[in-house]
Amino acid sequence: MPAGIPIDVDFIQAELNRRRPGQSKITTARQEKDQVELLSGVFEGVSTGCSIGFIVRNTNQHSSDYDNMRDVFRPSHADYTYFYKYGVRDHRGGGRSSARITISRCVAGALAKLALQQVGITIQAYTSQVGDIRLEHDYNHYDLSKAETNAVRCPDEAKAAEMIRLIEEVKGEGDTIGGIITGVVKGCPPGLGEPEADKLHAALGAAMLSINAVKGFEYGDGFACVTQRGSQQNDIFLPPHQGNSEAVATLPTASNHSGGIQGGISNGQDIYFRVAFKPVATLLREQPTVDIQGQATTLTARGRHDPCVLPRAVPVVEAMAAMVILDHYLLQKTTKI
Amino acid sequence: MPAGIPIDVDFIQAELNRRRPGQSKITTARQEKDQVELLSGVFEGVSTGCSIGFIVRNTNQHSSDYDNMRDVFRPSHADYTYFYKYGVRDHRGGGRSSARITISRCVAGALAKLALQQVGITIQAYTSQVGDIRLEHDYNHYDLSKAETNAVRCPDEAKAAEMIRLIEEVKGEGDTIGGIITGVVKGCPPGLGEPEADKLHAALGAAMLSINAVKGFEYGDGFACVTQRGSQQNDIFLPPHQGNSEAVATLPTASNHSGGIQGGISNGQDIYFRVAFKPVATLLREQPTVDIQGQATTLTARGRHDPCVLPRAVPVVEAMAAMVILDHYLLQKTTKI
Amino acid sequence: MPAGIPIDVDFIQAELNRRRPGQSKITTARQEKDQVELLSGVFEGVSTGCSIGFIVRNTNQHSSDYDNMRDVFRPSHADYTYFYKYGVRDHRGGGRSSARITISRCVAGALAKLALQQVGITIQAYTSQVGDIRLEHDYNHYDLSKAETNAVRCPDEAKAAEMIRLIEEVKGEGDTIGGIITGVVKGCPPGLGEPEADKLHAALGAAMLSINAVKGFEYGDGFACVTQRGSQQNDIFLPPHQGNSEAVATLPTASNHSGGIQGGISNGQDIYFRVAFKPVATLLREQPTVDIQGQATTLTARGRHDPCVLPRAVPVVEAMAAMVILDHYLLQKTTKI
Amino acid sequence: MPAGIPIDVDFIQAELNRRRPGQSKITTARQEKDQVELLSGVFEGVSTGCSIGFIVRNTNQHSSDYDNMRDVFRPSHADYTYFYKYGVRDHRGGGRSSARITISRCVAGALAKLALQQVGITIQAYTSQVGDIRLEHDYNHYDLSKAETNAVRCPDEAKAAEMIRLIEEVKGEGDTIGGIITGVVKGCPPGLGEPEADKLHAALGAAMLSINAVKGFEYGDGFACVTQRGSQQNDIFLPPHQGNSEAVATLPTASNHSGGIQGGISNGQDIYFRVAFKPVATLLREQPTVDIQGQATTLTARGRHDPCVLPRAVPVVEAMAAMVILDHYLLQKTTKI
Repeated sequence: MPAGIPIDVDFIQAELNRRRPGQSKITTARQEKDQVELLSGVFEGVSTGCSIGFIVRNTNQHSSDYDNMRDVFRPSHADYTYFYKYGVRDHRGGGRSSARITISRCVAGALAKLALQQVGITIQAYTSQVGDIRLEHDYNHYDLSKAETNAVRCPDEAKAAEMIRLIEEVKGEGDTIGGIITGVVKGCPPGLGEPEADKLHAALGAAMLSINAVKGFEYGDGFACVTQRGSQQNDIFLPPHQGNSEAVATLPTASNHSGGIQGGISNGQDIYFRVAFKPVATLLREQPTVDIQGQATTLTARGRHDPCVLPRAVPVVEAMAAMVILDHYLLQKTTKI
Repeated sequence: MPAGIPIDVDFIQAELNRRRPGQSKITTARQEKDQVELLSGVFEGVSTGCSIGFIVRNTNQHSSDYDNMRDVFRPSHADYTYFYKYGVRDHRGGGRSSARITISRCVAGALAKLALQQVGITIQAYTSQVGDIRLEHDYNHYDLSKAETNAVRCPDEAKAAEMIRLIEEVKGEGDTIGGIITGVVKGCPPGLGEPEADKLHAALGAAMLSINAVKGFEYGDGFACVTQRGSQQNDIFLPPHQGNSEAVATLPTASNHSGGIQGGISNGQDIYFRVAFKPVATLLREQPTVDIQGQATTLTARGRHDPCVLPRAVPVVEAMAAMVILDHYLLQKTTKI
Repeated sequence: MPAGIPIDVDFIQAELNRRRPGQSKITTARQEKDQVELLSGVFEGVSTGCSIGFIVRNTNQHSSDYDNMRDVFRPSHADYTYFYKYGVRDHRGGGRSSARITISRCVAGALAKLALQQVGITIQAYTSQVGDIRLEHDYNHYDLSKAETNAVRCPDEAKAAEMIRLIEEVKGEGDTIGGIITGVVKGCPPGLGEPEADKLHAALGAAMLSINAVKGFEYGDGFACVTQRGSQQNDIFLPPHQGNSEAVATLPTASNHSGGIQGGISNGQDIYFRVAFKPVATLLREQPTVDIQGQATTLTARGRHDPCVLPRAVPVVEAMAAMVILDHYLLQKTTKI
Repeated sequence: MPAGIPIDVDFIQAELNRRRPGQSKITTARQEKDQVELLSGVFEGVSTGCSIGFIVRNTNQHSSDYDNMRDVFRPSHADYTYFYKYGVRDHRGGGRSSARITISRCVAGALAKLALQQVGITIQAYTSQVGDIRLEHDYNHYDLSKAETNAVRCPDEAKAAEMIRLIEEVKGEGDTIGGIITGVVKGCPPGLGEPEADKLHAALGAAMLSINAVKGFEYGDGFACVTQRGSQQNDIFLPPHQGNSEAVATLPTASNHSGGIQGGISNGQDIYFRVAFKPVATLLREQPTVDIQGQATTLTARGRHDPCVLPRAVPVVEAMAAMVILDHYLLQKTTKI
């Protein structure tokens, strides 16, 4: 975290609250307070340039909810792979593989956002698809601030209502549903991203793929571009805006199929990307499985689980993007002596 | 590179030849010999555990082909972003952003494959889509070794012929076309991948996204899973095979929507993933653009460029996957003392 | 931290207590309880292979002791360099440059020791010099367990008494004194250390030089070897012990001037090294200095400071060595597939 | 390597020549041309910001000189530890543990020096001790440019003559001798170095300890400070020089026992340090040892070896320092947004 950034603790807590369970009928009913306490790195309201330590206590755990998972591997969850890898496993809430880890990411992301604010970079994500209900237009079409006005974090009110209905229906069946989150970075200057091993989109991709339940990442036109020709996909450069006084001007482009990144380096246009989330693996219905002795058994999850991870994952996507962009913003300063 | 691996230089050269330009009518006509010379790290045919240095000289460059790109930014290429980032740019062949860098990756990937062979892990990739011509089945349906029998590296002969026709048509128009490569890792044991920051699929994703022209990555059912329910996507564990004598058994699964990775850690099933490539940005036709003074101009690329990057990118996808899997195979050994 | 290690919390707390202030007349009179609380990574008394989080609250801070340092740079302390680097500074107790950071290192080192115990590697450090009072013999001459029986952590009782007298004298003058700590690693197998960039002694050196107040590091015969000839310094290999059934035997050596490391890699002999600590910079007497406006002023530190850092630094040296050895022990496992 | 630095290939070659064997009677008689060829990262005489690849071919190897070392471990060399670690060993010239690796470091160091020149930072090293012949004064007393006027690279002509005589004497006995190199960095601004894990002196120490044959590192007053009191060691700050217009002024100090680094961060004063080199392990005389079957044997090295590594190690020390300082110079730019 760079030095000298005003640290607004209320903002950090508010970002964390966007991720909190129990926000609405379509998220888990777990009531977790998730109160962040900063421990270091901030002095008199300003970052000191040193590590910012923080802690968020888990105050509402019901460990007993997990008792029946102690010796049983939940299908498509990390239970088995962790057990195989380490030979020991904390079965409560998934242990380290639990999505509670995204709390830390939201706090770190909030700090990164505070730094990026100083240089005019903003990051916003929203739910663009749940099951087969999808937005018809790209991000430019919507007022993204509206995403925060409904439970599913979708900027189109009508679609949001449909998505919510679908999630409630799925929830009623003890089932779960996947979806897509779109992320947008505005105000990012050209030049961010490192050739070869740390291209900006590769860093964004790795960050998004490290979020629980993510199965895919694409930026710009993504998978849709494969059916197109170069003459359709290329973004034609236009002369710089009048009065642009940079040593090297930021060039506008006639289109932005590239998603703001060319050759792994930002070009000054909006960066946008899409992240695919699978349906949550923990089902509130009986599933066949195997226990740690390798015996066939069945498992019915108890407790409170999300029928759809999308609404609460929106701030996580933003947080990961903020950290990647801030890292590269600072790294870019090392390019010239 | 681990110590004691037999190093078959002919295999390395053969892998490199799969990437070489000039292999067929549908790739660039550039004739690059791409002869690899090992410089260090191999002694009497075996890896010593030390760095393996190698060099591949560029013997067929026609720098003059790039003269007209010296002061002009190719649309959707890295010319402008490099120039902005560094303030200086080697315009010949794209300089560092050139796909020639994938030569190194193919050599390194061949070395990784030689190591993985020792433990029974194999990696194969193939072209599964070019433009709107796509394979109808998943990788299990095909004899993947057939991918090497045609110019486009597609295991379905009929589809391959269609893809080749499309590429020739596009080439005739001075245009380019995108596509999708599917990669498959077989024989990977459970336990590979590190929680949180270096999940196996995140490492694979970052590796694939670092290949020139890649716009998206998905693994397992990927983006397609978002319309599904947990009850459809979950892979049910089955009791271990009779006689499985591992301390912790490898568990079969009734399906493999997960793509061999759960919670970021391999589960012993096949790992498969898809990589989206955009159409090549360099077109052999006139395009409007801007020069380094910010003046509008036009550019017609000269020289020899691929109309479709897919056929030559197949070995690159394999190489990147091999490196990621080998890294995690070795890293996994550090889990227990 | 590797998985499956029994975690003895009392041992961790005991290690931390060795570093605690207020242990004797010759250390600072600050009474800090320094109670460690493990937060994650341990389940039913065993490490899970996941990150082990912990917290040690600062319960006895007297921030007001530092009020007069707010705008004044203590000579030879990090006050000025931090202020210059970051433009903002937490003046209380030195902020991030405070030696309180070594609390974390002691906890981490205790965890590393618990892991190393499993494979028979032990680490011990002791005060071998304070001011001009120095031990006359090398580590082999002493019963190192006696180091813990006196306040200065020196295994020679008579020398310990002299050292303590010197420290009390210096303390009486409001002054401070430096010294040397010797570290010994026993039971380390051959093969640890990575060529070139991460030689075992370079990693140890970097770890020791990162401890507050350290000015020098040497291993084996160190600086003393420079006046010697190769024929005096070389450690002659002897045939392996009868019945040594390793694939590659551990070879005894006739001497150990090398300090257990040759070519950056452990050779199975004892690793030993020496670490030079400067006299503590904070003096309980008036010193001239400059304030943040660049004006000449004077400063007399208040509060409770160590007249000699050595006694409390002994567990820190051990902790850093334990972490380095464990890292390389695990890393060495990646050498062969 | 930052972008836009003029790259003077003759300077790089000249730096490499300072390390070359066969420069004088007191270095090995091996004639290695050591011609550097830049492969990438430089365009029209200027660094592009991309990786600078280079190659230096070994044109004068006499592999047969090493035939008798094939199955025998040289005492105090890396032969045994490499064999144990990897199970395979390139015996020719020490393979990867050969000091020929310092060629790469000299080239990289020359590049770093070219970058540091742009901001007024200079680095100079010299031989300050060989055996028991040592300079009586610190670096300020000498005209360091004179170090390059004699074969041993010592700025005191009379001492240099003594050192050379000693080395010749030792060489005549088929023996070797150690020594100390002092390094000085001038013009380094305050603020370089990262708290905790990458303190500037820890990075310098790790770099020096990674040079072949190094046994110790100290900076500032180093080991000598341990007998001193804080009141003697502290460097009193003085008001900034008139007209210093920096936002935060560089403060002069009345002394520089700290060696230009306080709290791990440069303070703007000269950085100086000392590096201890052991006598070369390869002796041109018979030594008892053990072969790879564990049988006692003897070994007499053939070929051409240095009786004292110091003269040729001086440019290596400078190179390592240059790389560390440049890394931290660039890293420091990331402190503020």
